[in-house]
Amino acid sequence: MFILVTDGVQAMQEKLSWYPRMQRRFIQLKNNRFFELFVIGIIIFSALLIGAHTYNIPPIYLKIVTILDVGVTIFFFVEITIRFLAEENKKDFFKSGWNIFDTLVVTVSLIPIDDSEMVLLARLVRIFRVLRMVSVIPELRILLNSLLKALPQLGYVVMLMFIIFYIYAAIGSTIFSKINPELWRDISISLLTLFRVMTFEDWTDVMYETMAVYSFSWLYYLSFIFLTTFAFLNMVIGIVVNVMEEENRKAYVEQHKDEPTISDLHAEIQELKRLLQK
Amino acid sequence: MFILVTDGVQAMQEKLSWYPRMQRRFIQLKNNRFFELFVIGIIIFSALLIGAHTYNIPPIYLKIVTILDVGVTIFFFVEITIRFLAEENKKDFFKSGWNIFDTLVVTVSLIPIDDSEMVLLARLVRIFRVLRMVSVIPELRILLNSLLKALPQLGYVVMLMFIIFYIYAAIGSTIFSKINPELWRDISISLLTLFRVMTFEDWTDVMYETMAVYSFSWLYYLSFIFLTTFAFLNMVIGIVVNVMEEENRKAYVEQHKDEPTISDLHAEIQELKRLLQK
Amino acid sequence: MFILVTDGVQAMQEKLSWYPRMQRRFIQLKNNRFFELFVIGIIIFSALLIGAHTYNIPPIYLKIVTILDVGVTIFFFVEITIRFLAEENKKDFFKSGWNIFDTLVVTVSLIPIDDSEMVLLARLVRIFRVLRMVSVIPELRILLNSLLKALPQLGYVVMLMFIIFYIYAAIGSTIFSKINPELWRDISISLLTLFRVMTFEDWTDVMYETMAVYSFSWLYYLSFIFLTTFAFLNMVIGIVVNVMEEENRKAYVEQHKDEPTISDLHAEIQELKRLLQK
Amino acid sequence: MFILVTDGVQAMQEKLSWYPRMQRRFIQLKNNRFFELFVIGIIIFSALLIGAHTYNIPPIYLKIVTILDVGVTIFFFVEITIRFLAEENKKDFFKSGWNIFDTLVVTVSLIPIDDSEMVLLARLVRIFRVLRMVSVIPELRILLNSLLKALPQLGYVVMLMFIIFYIYAAIGSTIFSKINPELWRDISISLLTLFRVMTFEDWTDVMYETMAVYSFSWLYYLSFIFLTTFAFLNMVIGIVVNVMEEENRKAYVEQHKDEPTISDLHAEIQELKRLLQK
Repeated sequence: MFILVTDGVQAMQEKLSWYPRMQRRFIQLKNNRFFELFVIGIIIFSALLIGAHTYNIPPIYLKIVTILDVGVTIFFFVEITIRFLAEENKKDFFKSGWNIFDTLVVTVSLIPIDDSEMVLLARLVRIFRVLRMVSVIPELRILLNSLLKALPQLGYVVMLMFIIFYIYAAIGSTIFSKINPELWRDISISLLTLFRVMTFEDWTDVMYETMAVYSFSWLYYLSFIFLTTFAFLNMVIGIVVNVMEEENRKAYVEQHKDEPTISDLHAEIQELKRLLQK
Repeated sequence: MFILVTDGVQAMQEKLSWYPRMQRRFIQLKNNRFFELFVIGIIIFSALLIGAHTYNIPPIYLKIVTILDVGVTIFFFVEITIRFLAEENKKDFFKSGWNIFDTLVVTVSLIPIDDSEMVLLARLVRIFRVLRMVSVIPELRILLNSLLKALPQLGYVVMLMFIIFYIYAAIGSTIFSKINPELWRDISISLLTLFRVMTFEDWTDVMYETMAVYSFSWLYYLSFIFLTTFAFLNMVIGIVVNVMEEENRKAYVEQHKDEPTISDLHAEIQELKRLLQK
Repeated sequence: MFILVTDGVQAMQEKLSWYPRMQRRFIQLKNNRFFELFVIGIIIFSALLIGAHTYNIPPIYLKIVTILDVGVTIFFFVEITIRFLAEENKKDFFKSGWNIFDTLVVTVSLIPIDDSEMVLLARLVRIFRVLRMVSVIPELRILLNSLLKALPQLGYVVMLMFIIFYIYAAIGSTIFSKINPELWRDISISLLTLFRVMTFEDWTDVMYETMAVYSFSWLYYLSFIFLTTFAFLNMVIGIVVNVMEEENRKAYVEQHKDEPTISDLHAEIQELKRLLQK
Repeated sequence: MFILVTDGVQAMQEKLSWYPRMQRRFIQLKNNRFFELFVIGIIIFSALLIGAHTYNIPPIYLKIVTILDVGVTIFFFVEITIRFLAEENKKDFFKSGWNIFDTLVVTVSLIPIDDSEMVLLARLVRIFRVLRMVSVIPELRILLNSLLKALPQLGYVVMLMFIIFYIYAAIGSTIFSKINPELWRDISISLLTLFRVMTFEDWTDVMYETMAVYSFSWLYYLSFIFLTTFAFLNMVIGIVVNVMEEENRKAYVEQHKDEPTISDLHAEIQELKRLLQK
């Protein structure tokens, strides 16, 4: 009886307010697998439109592309509105960084632009819509989070590497700046040149140039290459070891979860002893 | 008695039909170690013939090479026919992808070609005969299968990497297309240019060119290199961890297979307890 | 009573000598978290000053930079004096390599320089102040120590690699010195050229040049690349395996530290047997 | 008594024959730590002499270097003779590959050369003396053996990689030979070009050249790079996993060698049960 009554009350409440009913439908829609696939499809389509813009297409097709672009913008606006309305606690919506990112990208591309200067900027903003791929596909979101989680562990190695770079750049711009200002003018240009040396990109050209003046400058380049390679290797090995350890711990727990542990055996034997001593 | 009768019937049947007898011989031939080595030898010989074609050889030798080529084609046709006839259930033959591949390569090279245009195509098809090496040597087949099995695990990292590439290519072709259309004309050319940057191949030339116009474009290149290197490293580490885990699981099972497990000990102690409590 | 007396004596002693009181304050200061952060801040500021020197700044700003530089030098001198006075046993201070390094860098930059020739050298010495970052931040010090600890394990692989390099350099400078003296003049230049080949930096240009004279010289380059790549890979794998092993051993001990060991179980069962045999 | 007699006999025998006494001394010498270090010193000195030859040294010093070279040759001859005489069973001496290598290098450099043509060859042979470093230092010998042991495990991956290279080289020299005969003339030149592409050495220059004729040829290069990178990565991971597994097995045995195994516990519990069932 009681249940029926409350049911009736709920039904009445729902008749009175249209909002909760709508919200329920939005939640259903948001969690619908086909809707998700459809959104992914539209994102891919939007990415193709962005790509199409970079080709030299005849004006007629360009018009079609622009119209489709507006369509995609409207669709994204509607989709984000649905996701916002589907959220029960509106404040929670903006707690997720991805939701803020989505809202920003969609909102900015809604602003009408007439100025030809701004058209370029508007197109650049639209490119970031492709990143919505990550916000929509959960597996990509998890992957990105796990990648970001690996970063802080690298903090100190990156700091050490930056110290090496900074010292070498300071030495380089102090000694070599007169030999080739293009490469060693000041410390920021020198940092770029050293990054180039680290990627082995025409680094011998850079070296031979300074060796013509300071014949021992190969020591500078070789020591730099050894130090950065060694630090980089250590960074990579650091990540590998961290990931492996995590995996091993999980695997160990997984392997032994159904088995009694050695501690269980120990307890059992203790009990046996008590039985015997009685 | 009964056995003898059926044996007799079988013998009679075999006398009556020549086919099963032939099939038995084909199976014997197919599984023969020397036949296998002979086939491998012919494939290597065929690979050398293909190589010989690329040299500027005098017409007389070219004729010999062409005749030997025909011989190899005929041998391959005979070999594949034997393997087909040796198969008990003819439908199973085409269930193996390698058999289909072999049949295709052999069939296509049987088509007589007079047109000089098509000669090039025919030679290209013949090159793929070298891949028969993989279909004939079981160890290579297993290796290739294990390599292919590792691919799907990489799916999402590859997808993330493609998203990074696509966004940077869209930005690049939007901003830099007027600086150097050769490298940044449209999104597909930009993708190729970015792949070049990722391999560090003269990437500073590409960068210095755009830095002359947009002095902050080094941020574009450095962020791209960091992101792709980091994603690539993660992909590699992902494979390493997966392979290691698999190996560790196998090793664990191998190490403990002869030993009683902790669960066995647990059961034994339970039994002891029961004995004591009696 | 007794305690009160000694307290009184101590208080008296402290009144008599000002030094121990000062030392206590220095120790407090040295271990103060804010003081540490302040020192790190000054080191970063000193690094920025070094960077500023490499830019073409107008004379007025240069004067400010120079004055600030003197300020930093004085601060470093005061800081190192505090750390020295805070040390209870003065001899222990110079047992730490980092303290010696710090004292050296600070002392050298205190020497007043008028000679324009020496200005460059003075600036170079000041650059090494950035390395004080490592001596001040304990985490970086630990990281660097662990990197250095990995080096001796590599000793023999590095030796093998140097032997490979030396033999190839000797062959190269013997055979190729007449083709291009720039690259193969003597054994030390050849070693540099081979290092360039190992980094794949325009190595084909080097090869094509010698292949014009000795058409089989590709064998020299390819064998060198294979050998060094293989040795380098082995070195890297060597470090990975060493680090992993260490980590695994630690993880094993960590996982099992709260559990009774199999040996414990064995002892318990022995005791059970004794109880039964009674 | 008896012992005294045999001792006397032995002493007499030794007085009679000088050879065993000499041999005992040679064995002592061969195993002497200082002698080993002295030999290593001479090898390093000989390496420095080889290096000195590559410099443009004045005739007087060249004469000194040549005389020292003869001295080193004689020393090596004496040293190898001692090692040969120290061997109890002369046949065993030539069972070790390193001994054969040492004897060969020393013997060849003993041959007197007057012909100016042959001088170059003689110098090349002398360079291989540096490899004696590996034959003399046991740790390097062990390292090299372990490197060589890793090779056969890679057999099939290397074979697969060669098949990929061969197919691409055959395609390349068939299609591109007319575009640039320098790079694609025949299959062996194409193999070299592809190796260059794999090391990313100016590979885009090679690609742009063929893309001018066949605009889709980027597919050829990109697929090649993906395949070889993937195969190479797998090869590296293969070695890592093999080494790790070996190490893990050793570590497992090491960790558990002092502990009773689970099997021991099982046996103990069986005995308990027997005691109880009595």
